[in-house]
Amino acid sequence: MPGPSKRGFEIDASPIRSLLPYAREAIRQGVRVYHLNIGQPDLETPEPARKLLQNLEEPIVRYGPSEGFPSLRKAVAKYYARFETNVSSEDVFVTTGASEAILFTLLSCCNQGDELIIPEPFYANYIGYADVSDVKIVPITTSLENGFQLPSPEKFEEKINSKTKAIFLCNPGNPTGQLYEKEQLESLLRIVKKHNLFLIVDEVYREFCYDSSFTSVLSFSGMEEHVIVIDSISKVFSACGARVGFLITKNKSVQEAVNKYAQLRLCPPYYGQNLALACYEDPIPYISKAKEKYQSRRKVLFDGLSNIDGVECYLPAAAFYNIVELPVPDAEAFCKWLLTDFRYQNETVMLAPANGFYFNKEYGKSQVRIAYILNEDDLRKAIHCLDLGLAEFKKEVLSVASR
Amino acid sequence: MPGPSKRGFEIDASPIRSLLPYAREAIRQGVRVYHLNIGQPDLETPEPARKLLQNLEEPIVRYGPSEGFPSLRKAVAKYYARFETNVSSEDVFVTTGASEAILFTLLSCCNQGDELIIPEPFYANYIGYADVSDVKIVPITTSLENGFQLPSPEKFEEKINSKTKAIFLCNPGNPTGQLYEKEQLESLLRIVKKHNLFLIVDEVYREFCYDSSFTSVLSFSGMEEHVIVIDSISKVFSACGARVGFLITKNKSVQEAVNKYAQLRLCPPYYGQNLALACYEDPIPYISKAKEKYQSRRKVLFDGLSNIDGVECYLPAAAFYNIVELPVPDAEAFCKWLLTDFRYQNETVMLAPANGFYFNKEYGKSQVRIAYILNEDDLRKAIHCLDLGLAEFKKEVLSVASR
Repeated sequence: MPGPSKRGFEIDASPIRSLLPYAREAIRQGVRVYHLNIGQPDLETPEPARKLLQNLEEPIVRYGPSEGFPSLRKAVAKYYARFETNVSSEDVFVTTGASEAILFTLLSCCNQGDELIIPEPFYANYIGYADVSDVKIVPITTSLENGFQLPSPEKFEEKINSKTKAIFLCNPGNPTGQLYEKEQLESLLRIVKKHNLFLIVDEVYREFCYDSSFTSVLSFSGMEEHVIVIDSISKVFSACGARVGFLITKNKSVQEAVNKYAQLRLCPPYYGQNLALACYEDPIPYISKAKEKYQSRRKVLFDGLSNIDGVECYLPAAAFYNIVELPVPDAEAFCKWLLTDFRYQNETVMLAPANGFYFNKEYGKSQVRIAYILNEDDLRKAIHCLDLGLAEFKKEVLSVASR
Repeated sequence: MPGPSKRGFEIDASPIRSLLPYAREAIRQGVRVYHLNIGQPDLETPEPARKLLQNLEEPIVRYGPSEGFPSLRKAVAKYYARFETNVSSEDVFVTTGASEAILFTLLSCCNQGDELIIPEPFYANYIGYADVSDVKIVPITTSLENGFQLPSPEKFEEKINSKTKAIFLCNPGNPTGQLYEKEQLESLLRIVKKHNLFLIVDEVYREFCYDSSFTSVLSFSGMEEHVIVIDSISKVFSACGARVGFLITKNKSVQEAVNKYAQLRLCPPYYGQNLALACYEDPIPYISKAKEKYQSRRKVLFDGLSNIDGVECYLPAAAFYNIVELPVPDAEAFCKWLLTDFRYQNETVMLAPANGFYFNKEYGKSQVRIAYILNEDDLRKAIHCLDLGLAEFKKEVLSVASR
């Protein structure tokens, strides 16, 4: 009987989703699980946009243009003007989620065997897409002690060789919540220009910056040919299931390649694009409220975690994630145990082991990623579960194992 | 300034979509263009399903399971029972269109450099997905003279070597409209079993068979481990823009690989899945009516084409396509000319040059693919345009060129 491909067998399962079977089993048993493991906000998708979908009168759900609805591309270009960019609608490709934008970017910019330099920890699915497109990831490890700050320009330059095609950033950062400042981006752009590379930046969390303002990499004039931005409506408008993202670049020859990959999959989703179009009609009021909520939750999480013995954390500057160091040797085993063995008033909490966000698998073994995407009450209960879970794990599991 | 990847530069533009800029320009000039170039039916998407979308009460458009809604997987499994299969819901993966099902199949079954044997002409996007997944296509050319019948088992066996991973079919055929019979599939399955290969069959047109009944490759007992089926709601329910397809296999180790690629892109579209779920509620009445319409149009097209001087065609058994040989040396130049230069009562017709459906680029140069997806009146007018266009092209272009 024929088996799967070697690459299909060896590709990592998603660290964000790999514990799902245990969570499903707990839920089946009637346990309430607080999901802090996945970036699925609990905020309602903008109601006017959802209502607008009810008024679609077109009787045929037909293929759209491969690049996306012209109206949506125009609306997104207009939105980008807020960030001191001069993006035009031709620079915007609508994709099936940021996921597809990542894939199209790698295919359009890199050949098999080319290298991408990425500060780690990073969004784990970059590994999967590098694998699909046969591109090699060259990580630069950053650390919790300094809040996962951007490595120095020298550290990047050390890694550049003839195979290097791009520097890849997530700004604001998933899973770290760090925010790179204008000057930091500028110094990277100088390197990128010097070595004729691309700077690819995943900016899907750009709207959620709490302590200082956001700088889009698209705002630097004279650097347009080097820059590719990945974006999505999933987090900004709490519309993860719509599967609408964007790839934005002003590099015409890259646009041509992207266009061919876009034609290959025919078009992005019709309903999702209509929803997105309605979301960009008047985005600011919704976004401002969402940002306020995340900002309060950030404080609730930070205060809660700071009071748990042995937990190391920092105040993230942006996005809605936090990498946290737990007093356990194997965070993945602990996360699994929370789902299979631990119950407090018939509730438990689900976290994402952070090891999966590192390319070097020796890092992050005691860390988890926490997404603060629940309301404050639930967040407090979830933190309480974590606190009690850690104490019980120490008593019941670690002490037994060390005997 | 950095350029695109070699693969992104070299990948073929879609032959179905590459003439689009000329069509857009004609439309901009106020010309009516009959689109026979793309498999975008003019039938309405089932109205009850579209209405049902208006009653979705979930306030958050959230990520769904990577494998698709459990309810939809169940509905699809139930639908497959009609084809004497024993598909269970765990065997069904919901994908973002058949396009994604093709990609997941190639990644999950083939390594870089592995080979797929495919009868040509075939759906052109298989080339693009083979390119993305670095798999080599080994074509077996079939011909219009015998209605693009399946090559003999010996022809397939000649092409098998240690790199061969699968035989890939489109049944019913796009772009040919051919239908493979039960005995033909059986003889291929014997080869597949003997050489431990997969048989991958794209069955998205299965509901439109006009002269004999359809046999799904999933219906052969004892062959389950070898079979992967690609499916979609796009054509069956005239819902191309919804982006909902399926990958179906009972091979558990392939399922595990598919699951990881599915997790990588998070989930298929929420709205599209809801639409699909409603479509499978009571699919037969809608499908029967659609089939009747295509059957009448098939006759209109065949009768019309048979009356045009120098055009060679055949009566396709299934799907809604026809490959037609035109009395022109370069069908692509003719198709372009129809859009840029030819007008009849301010109307013209758009066809897909068939050359793009052949892997061997020396074939099909005088052929076009015609999709009979317009109502009978429009179809007659479009054929009339083609008839007049051919006469004018012969007079104005070919005779001038030969002077």
